[in-house]
Amino acid sequence: MRALQYRTIGAAPEIVEIETPEPGPGEVRIRVTAAGACHSDSFIMGLNEEQYIYGLPLTLGHEGAGIVDKLGEGVTGVEVGEAVAVYGPQGCGRCVQCAQGKENYCERAAELGIRPPGLGAPGAMAEYLVVPDARFLLPLGDLDPVEHVALTDAGLTPYHAIKMSLPKLVPGTTAVVIGAGGLGHVAIQLLRALSPATVVALDVSQDKLRLATEVGAHHVFPSDAEAAERVKELTGGRGAAAVFDFVAIQPTIDAGHAMLAVEGDQVLVGVGAGAVPAGLLAAPYDSTVRAPYWGSRAELFEVFELARAGLVKIETERFSLDEAPEAYRRLHEGTLRGRAVVVP
Amino acid sequence: MRALQYRTIGAAPEIVEIETPEPGPGEVRIRVTAAGACHSDSFIMGLNEEQYIYGLPLTLGHEGAGIVDKLGEGVTGVEVGEAVAVYGPQGCGRCVQCAQGKENYCERAAELGIRPPGLGAPGAMAEYLVVPDARFLLPLGDLDPVEHVALTDAGLTPYHAIKMSLPKLVPGTTAVVIGAGGLGHVAIQLLRALSPATVVALDVSQDKLRLATEVGAHHVFPSDAEAAERVKELTGGRGAAAVFDFVAIQPTIDAGHAMLAVEGDQVLVGVGAGAVPAGLLAAPYDSTVRAPYWGSRAELFEVFELARAGLVKIETERFSLDEAPEAYRRLHEGTLRGRAVVVP
Amino acid sequence: MRALQYRTIGAAPEIVEIETPEPGPGEVRIRVTAAGACHSDSFIMGLNEEQYIYGLPLTLGHEGAGIVDKLGEGVTGVEVGEAVAVYGPQGCGRCVQCAQGKENYCERAAELGIRPPGLGAPGAMAEYLVVPDARFLLPLGDLDPVEHVALTDAGLTPYHAIKMSLPKLVPGTTAVVIGAGGLGHVAIQLLRALSPATVVALDVSQDKLRLATEVGAHHVFPSDAEAAERVKELTGGRGAAAVFDFVAIQPTIDAGHAMLAVEGDQVLVGVGAGAVPAGLLAAPYDSTVRAPYWGSRAELFEVFELARAGLVKIETERFSLDEAPEAYRRLHEGTLRGRAVVVP
Amino acid sequence: MRALQYRTIGAAPEIVEIETPEPGPGEVRIRVTAAGACHSDSFIMGLNEEQYIYGLPLTLGHEGAGIVDKLGEGVTGVEVGEAVAVYGPQGCGRCVQCAQGKENYCERAAELGIRPPGLGAPGAMAEYLVVPDARFLLPLGDLDPVEHVALTDAGLTPYHAIKMSLPKLVPGTTAVVIGAGGLGHVAIQLLRALSPATVVALDVSQDKLRLATEVGAHHVFPSDAEAAERVKELTGGRGAAAVFDFVAIQPTIDAGHAMLAVEGDQVLVGVGAGAVPAGLLAAPYDSTVRAPYWGSRAELFEVFELARAGLVKIETERFSLDEAPEAYRRLHEGTLRGRAVVVP
Repeated sequence: MRALQYRTIGAAPEIVEIETPEPGPGEVRIRVTAAGACHSDSFIMGLNEEQYIYGLPLTLGHEGAGIVDKLGEGVTGVEVGEAVAVYGPQGCGRCVQCAQGKENYCERAAELGIRPPGLGAPGAMAEYLVVPDARFLLPLGDLDPVEHVALTDAGLTPYHAIKMSLPKLVPGTTAVVIGAGGLGHVAIQLLRALSPATVVALDVSQDKLRLATEVGAHHVFPSDAEAAERVKELTGGRGAAAVFDFVAIQPTIDAGHAMLAVEGDQVLVGVGAGAVPAGLLAAPYDSTVRAPYWGSRAELFEVFELARAGLVKIETERFSLDEAPEAYRRLHEGTLRGRAVVVP
Repeated sequence: MRALQYRTIGAAPEIVEIETPEPGPGEVRIRVTAAGACHSDSFIMGLNEEQYIYGLPLTLGHEGAGIVDKLGEGVTGVEVGEAVAVYGPQGCGRCVQCAQGKENYCERAAELGIRPPGLGAPGAMAEYLVVPDARFLLPLGDLDPVEHVALTDAGLTPYHAIKMSLPKLVPGTTAVVIGAGGLGHVAIQLLRALSPATVVALDVSQDKLRLATEVGAHHVFPSDAEAAERVKELTGGRGAAAVFDFVAIQPTIDAGHAMLAVEGDQVLVGVGAGAVPAGLLAAPYDSTVRAPYWGSRAELFEVFELARAGLVKIETERFSLDEAPEAYRRLHEGTLRGRAVVVP
Repeated sequence: MRALQYRTIGAAPEIVEIETPEPGPGEVRIRVTAAGACHSDSFIMGLNEEQYIYGLPLTLGHEGAGIVDKLGEGVTGVEVGEAVAVYGPQGCGRCVQCAQGKENYCERAAELGIRPPGLGAPGAMAEYLVVPDARFLLPLGDLDPVEHVALTDAGLTPYHAIKMSLPKLVPGTTAVVIGAGGLGHVAIQLLRALSPATVVALDVSQDKLRLATEVGAHHVFPSDAEAAERVKELTGGRGAAAVFDFVAIQPTIDAGHAMLAVEGDQVLVGVGAGAVPAGLLAAPYDSTVRAPYWGSRAELFEVFELARAGLVKIETERFSLDEAPEAYRRLHEGTLRGRAVVVP
Repeated sequence: MRALQYRTIGAAPEIVEIETPEPGPGEVRIRVTAAGACHSDSFIMGLNEEQYIYGLPLTLGHEGAGIVDKLGEGVTGVEVGEAVAVYGPQGCGRCVQCAQGKENYCERAAELGIRPPGLGAPGAMAEYLVVPDARFLLPLGDLDPVEHVALTDAGLTPYHAIKMSLPKLVPGTTAVVIGAGGLGHVAIQLLRALSPATVVALDVSQDKLRLATEVGAHHVFPSDAEAAERVKELTGGRGAAAVFDFVAIQPTIDAGHAMLAVEGDQVLVGVGAGAVPAGLLAAPYDSTVRAPYWGSRAELFEVFELARAGLVKIETERFSLDEAPEAYRRLHEGTLRGRAVVVP
């Protein structure tokens, strides 16, 4: 079969012909119908030899959907021909975290060498993908795989981030999204669907702010040094009950901290790091800071239900497998309008 | 191997020699080190031909522990020689309930014909048991299997029942346990370990009330027509924040309802049914009634952690496999002191 | 001043001239700008001498709004001229329930003889109303008092009922509203604003079902013997995650119970009573039944915030104080279109 | 009456004769039976003229208990002669935070000039204290005021800090208390009473570690550079589900951060400030940092219920009002064994 592989550190990924994988006992093979290209793919292809830990060659693609094609021995509860989406942050299935479906926080994945498809294990940018267990396959039903495959990461990640803060987003509160791009514009839709909060979007790009308004933000502001002040003013001095920061660099972290309400949540979703002031004399009472990673299996079910109800949509641009290197090039350049989805 | 089977409706279970099962792909075989005998086994052996739906012959035992003995093809994350306990209410692993580890509420178990071991599938009252997936095997570590095997049901069931009500059991509240027997005396220990509530036990037997006091009940009362009044008086008129009813017949249901506080939880854990008054004019404001079934995988981890911390203990009486029919006879007669555990 | 009083058991309420009340120490007088007429007023005026416990003469009106007019000695934190709405289910302020703002569940109200305005204490159907404490006055701000006064009961009651079930109303679940009238049509709006659940409305009246659709119900069905079956079918057999029953008579209670999902909530909001089956063999696992009463102070803030955001509206018909008896007559006849609001 | 007042910046507090205050409308006067001396009193008396904002002269004492002595006009629901404890972080009573009893987070206290007794308003180190509203008086019942007065701050503050983290402290988890002094040794007792978690105490003083063991800590370690490593080892690498830091200086903040588990809570309770790393690449997934302040009214009820149940005790040393300056001197020196309580 053909696959898109990252083969040489620093080089572009390339289309290669490799052997079609066979599902072993307990495994399931799907014929891929859609695979999403993600910034984190770009991120790992930007690492140098010392930093890169994902193995070579690596078939890319941690967002995948397909049709169940062949069952390994002993597999039950799934039928050949079923349309499915792949849950990416796979765990051992047995530890106390996996026992709650929080396989993204599996306690034994590192020890057992378990890696997500496309981030260590062979990914979905290929004609076929073998998944280690049927529990990683969520029923897609009638949902179009190309339009919805990106929900497995670009939907699930903000969903998980937001879900934990929902109890704070009661009527009259304000939620802020910093960075209205790939994940951020999904976050805005999720906040509108899940809460009665006023939604404010911040971005440095006017285009992104336009998009933010289109998908439901009540207010949009430039993401600059005055953003915190504007949010404070908008909220009558109270501040934001939750700030979801999809940029997560020191300036946005500082701004997020400065606009937080008493008991507010600052949630750093982007791949970044910084420092925050903490303590009674340094932060609003009982405000919190946290950084979530991806999401749970049950949460992915819920994301697809939102899509089914028409409450969340991801703008996508479609590429053939041959065009996949081009998709990554444009992703890297920042010239994509929406999520690049490869259809093998 | 030898096994204890229920073979004829209405007859006693008997020891038979059957073929030792082989684990198929994805399955795991354990050498059984302990199997608990439970009232629900007695219950199903008391059903007539029309009611009985568990198949014949049926190897009994839905509480099981053992040593991992042989791995089917494709099994990872578990080692031969590992000491494990078996999670009983097994589900499909794939539906939205199983995706949270709530396999006791699996949406597809009926459709897929999945039954718990000993309650449809071959059970643990045998030298060997084959389990469909490694995720059903919880690490026992150093815990003695004979002393702890019953936690898989007699511990997990009250734990799940109590856990949902914990937010209501704040300091100053009262929790009532009706029926201080097999599950009830575990419930008392759990309430003491997990909450600061005052714990009241009700039973018709003085022996059981003595046991209740030994395992931590603050107050014990006869389970009679005045019990509700006594609880009301003890709580200054406020009533119980939670009532856990392990008898669940109409008289205990009525008593539980009559002693409930505003916002109290009436939890019917026993295998029973009845009717409760409902509505603004008929029950304390926002009080609830519910009936849970068994528990989740993550909850079973938590139960074993309580045992590890010395916070819960089940009194057990030990029987060899040959003595297993005798164990069930005494269970039926009510002459057991504690849980009967069979060691094959 | 003039007031609408219920003076004789069984007679219609009448307009009388009474002395304008003076606020004592700690009390606040408001000049009433709007007072809502509610079915429960009709209910208590329908009671016979033995049942009636609210005192005579009784100035009606437990939904009130006004302008702060005069402060009793020692009152701080409120200004003459401020537009306010009155929190009705007033408590002692000091007990553990009131300490959480759940004055609707005050532990000492009965002992201390505290009654809500219009339901024992003088109500809002008058030119002036004296409120015992400033904490019962919520800032109305720019909200029109006539359009919004009914939120203090007809909004708060369903809000409280729904809020407790929100954690269960995740994407993909279904919420059912039985009775799409005064409170029910608000419940539909609240469910849409607060959750991503599919909302189903049931009613015996085609008019009410039309209204239900207008305010946001996804599906409407006649409230008849087949309603439970239809909900089951609509949800793929799963049932409703929550049923809010604003009728709460035995037939709707039975229907609600029959359509409930595993872990579903049956919430009886109407003034009624009935019986429900309970127990492992009689109800979906971990499903609950409860009956809430009115709501908390903080919840009323949240209801007004929803109104401010345009997420909830109550259709109202406006009456002068002279027309108030007529308003009650039409309420009793069932010929009102929306809530009757009296403007003294 | 006599009172202990702070009168000159930098000087010691002194006993003075002042006029006995009269309760105005809505107010209540108590005859003080006990007043606790707290480190934060020392803290504010250590501020220089620019920093000090509490007014002069200031009657000290924000922990108070007494007997209701005289009611202002219009006060109901409290009786002369009732034994009470004073809730310190008083708010406006009317805002959305106060409407939940979270007066410690009152939105209008600053604007309205509301200050806690002893921290701006006249405090409890006097023969009499006037409290602005009966809702600030919690029934003490039979509890000895001297032994329990410190619970109003030294009990309530750790209780609030811990309560928010209780859902994470499931069986098998570990909670760490840094600083086993005044508040820390209460926190240890609360953790034992409220959760099944393993409790670890860290302190630089061997005496404090001995005390920690006496009040229930399972493990005690020196609070040094290896503490994080020891906690990691003790927990099998998992880390602490919650760290309660009563020191809250950069070294303890760093240690707390280094020992945190995935989804763990770092709670800074001490009066301090620092910086923490934040972000996906810098902290365990979904771990949080927060700094709470005092606690809510309902939480104080719960603290007293714990005392009633014998689950929390504060070691106290008793002083007469004349000896109060001496009590503060010894507090400042660090030579007190337990909490200093002044009995006027």
